Amino acid sequence: MSDATPPAESRLDRFDAYRARMNARILDEGSHLGIKRFFNLDSAAYRDGALDGKTKELLGLVASAVLRCNDCIDYHLEQCAEAGWSEAEVEDALNVALVVGGSIVIPHLRHAVETMDLIRERDGGWRDGEG
Amino acid sequence: MSDATPPAESRLDRFDAYRARMNARILDEGSHLGIKRFFNLDSAAYRDGALDGKTKELLGLVASAVLRCNDCIDYHLEQCAEAGWSEAEVEDALNVALVVGGSIVIPHLRHAVETMDLIRERDGGWRDGEG
Amino acid sequence: MSDATPPAESRLDRFDAYRARMNARILDEGSHLGIKRFFNLDSAAYRDGALDGKTKELLGLVASAVLRCNDCIDYHLEQCAEAGWSEAEVEDALNVALVVGGSIVIPHLRHAVETMDLIRERDGGWRDGEG
Amino acid sequence: MSDATPPAESRLDRFDAYRARMNARILDEGSHLGIKRFFNLDSAAYRDGALDGKTKELLGLVASAVLRCNDCIDYHLEQCAEAGWSEAEVEDALNVALVVGGSIVIPHLRHAVETMDLIRERDGGWRDGEG
Amino acid sequence: MSDATPPAESRLDRFDAYRARMNARILDEGSHLGIKRFFNLDSAAYRDGALDGKTKELLGLVASAVLRCNDCIDYHLEQCAEAGWSEAEVEDALNVALVVGGSIVIPHLRHAVETMDLIRERDGGWRDGEG
Amino acid sequence: MSDATPPAESRLDRFDAYRARMNARILDEGSHLGIKRFFNLDSAAYRDGALDGKTKELLGLVASAVLRCNDCIDYHLEQCAEAGWSEAEVEDALNVALVVGGSIVIPHLRHAVETMDLIRERDGGWRDGEG
Repeated sequence: MSDATPPAESRLDRFDAYRARMNARILDEGSHLGIKRFFNLDSAAYRDGALDGKTKELLGLVASAVLRCNDCIDYHLEQCAEAGWSEAEVEDALNVALVVGGSIVIPHLRHAVETMDLIRERDGGWRDGEG
Repeated sequence: MSDATPPAESRLDRFDAYRARMNARILDEGSHLGIKRFFNLDSAAYRDGALDGKTKELLGLVASAVLRCNDCIDYHLEQCAEAGWSEAEVEDALNVALVVGGSIVIPHLRHAVETMDLIRERDGGWRDGEG
Repeated sequence: MSDATPPAESRLDRFDAYRARMNARILDEGSHLGIKRFFNLDSAAYRDGALDGKTKELLGLVASAVLRCNDCIDYHLEQCAEAGWSEAEVEDALNVALVVGGSIVIPHLRHAVETMDLIRERDGGWRDGEG
Repeated sequence: MSDATPPAESRLDRFDAYRARMNARILDEGSHLGIKRFFNLDSAAYRDGALDGKTKELLGLVASAVLRCNDCIDYHLEQCAEAGWSEAEVEDALNVALVVGGSIVIPHLRHAVETMDLIRERDGGWRDGEG
Repeated sequence: MSDATPPAESRLDRFDAYRARMNARILDEGSHLGIKRFFNLDSAAYRDGALDGKTKELLGLVASAVLRCNDCIDYHLEQCAEAGWSEAEVEDALNVALVVGGSIVIPHLRHAVETMDLIRERDGGWRDGEG
Repeated sequence: MSDATPPAESRLDRFDAYRARMNARILDEGSHLGIKRFFNLDSAAYRDGALDGKTKELLGLVASAVLRCNDCIDYHLEQCAEAGWSEAEVEDALNVALVVGGSIVIPHLRHAVETMDLIRERDGGWRDGEG
């Protein structure tokens, strides 16, 4: 790739960079202790426990979708891809979110599908499973 | 059980009866076609697909918890018990809901834990798993 | 009515009485001026304007349903019956709320249908229209 | 208009194009059956029934406003203009949404008013009615 | 109190008892570690910090009101009375919640005003301040 | 500053300009009377009353954060800085919002922290207090 044009930065790349920068800003030395502890608790919730972390990422995705938070959807989609969920499985989870949350979820479904495309293009992502 | 006192009807029993009666009322012959089709779509969302139905019941539970709907929580808890999730697994899913949805979810967590107790007493329910 | 059994008080009657009593309590002489003004503004929003009041009651019902507030649904159903909407028209409006708001609205749809039955029994309510 | 500068593309034009492209992407051949059926159900909810489609577009607008979804607001505003609602009528509906939903709706009211201006400029839209 | 009628148990007393019982049930030995840690974090958020605990109870009340959670409202009203807020101050805070959250908050305002009455009757509560 | 580069316009400056322009548009002569009255009521809610205006700005901020409205957060952060709250105090209030509203608030916390930085850079803002 030495003499190739570098790939264009997508909105997902920009989100990742913004998220990393602001989280570091929020968690730096002088920050609010309660906020830091909340971030720790949040990370811990998705580690293997009675349920494995992979399952819990899918729970996080559906929670994000019904609460209609695009940034949260993007984050959990990246985690779901990394955890080994296939696109068909993620779509099946998003269908649950759509039925629970209604047509008001549709703009976030459009966003999610676009993000899934960006993950495939960038990371070669998504397991080629049948679910 | 001839000479035994029948078990007291719990709020979960009353909910089940109310839910069954009103759903029948909503879905009877003369009802709105769109509403009937929505109920069909809702049932279909939890059948085996790319994801198995068991996993999707857990998604439904977490969606219900973060959207803070006690009736939906009760319904999905009953489905989760029937699908074979253990109590520890369900608690781990509710922990994700609590972290995503915040302390405003706590009253619904209290409700959910009480419902889990009612399910255990009534149905002998919940698989004795480690998750 | 001297020798007749008085009709049983329904949950809708109790709601009406509670609502009237607490609103009087909230709006009494010494109360917060901003809260009183808000109540005035709220009443004014449903009076005839560019849209007639009847149409706006239906808007209020759908807003209440997607925001999942049973007390608000009951109030607007009573107003809709009084304004002359038929049951079929109200069901068609509730179908829009169900599709927009998703299955999380279903418990409130059950509540609404029960309230519509109570209104019919009590008030002889609901215009016999085709919509 | 052969030698004239084409009109600048507005954010509403971009939304329409994005919406059309992503909906096609979501509804293409290989997509999730449940999601496709949900989209059909969503379209059907706004067709003439007990209530006419025009009234139901206004219900969809108010539901979108109180649920605070800009994309949904834009879509329903376009539909309301096409269905023949006047600007005064739509503002009266948005006032109901504002009172029901509170000041948290104000940013979406700003968005809606801007969209109404864009519709007027682009489509010559909005019936010149008194309501 | 030997020959006096004990005071009737109010819905607030029942809530307090239920809340205490279920929280103990949730936090008992075998419970989910993440849930226990969340409860700790929740308690810590209302302790004196950059803001004093009294101010933060009022923040908790307004957050509970706009998110429309009656149990959370009851809990924070009890805490606000204990922290020394007057009724007039609490009403002024609830007015902010009403304006931000809209008429959908009104049923919760009725609930809150009733709870404030119950606190006054039971605890002699509420500082006699002018705010 | 005659020969200096003017400072770059930030997203906060653009928001302020957009907000002022659209509010003027909404409140102009021919606008909906109910909407104008709502805006008046909204302004009045933050004036000194039983609680001082400074405290009520903080209530408005927390309400905006748990309801997840970035525009509302930006507006109330500007008001909080002007009212004399320190950054540590505002962070302590945001921690309450985070615990009440859960991890779904985190994207809005990132936004809020970025806005606080923009306020400091632009206005020299924020009182240098310990809270």
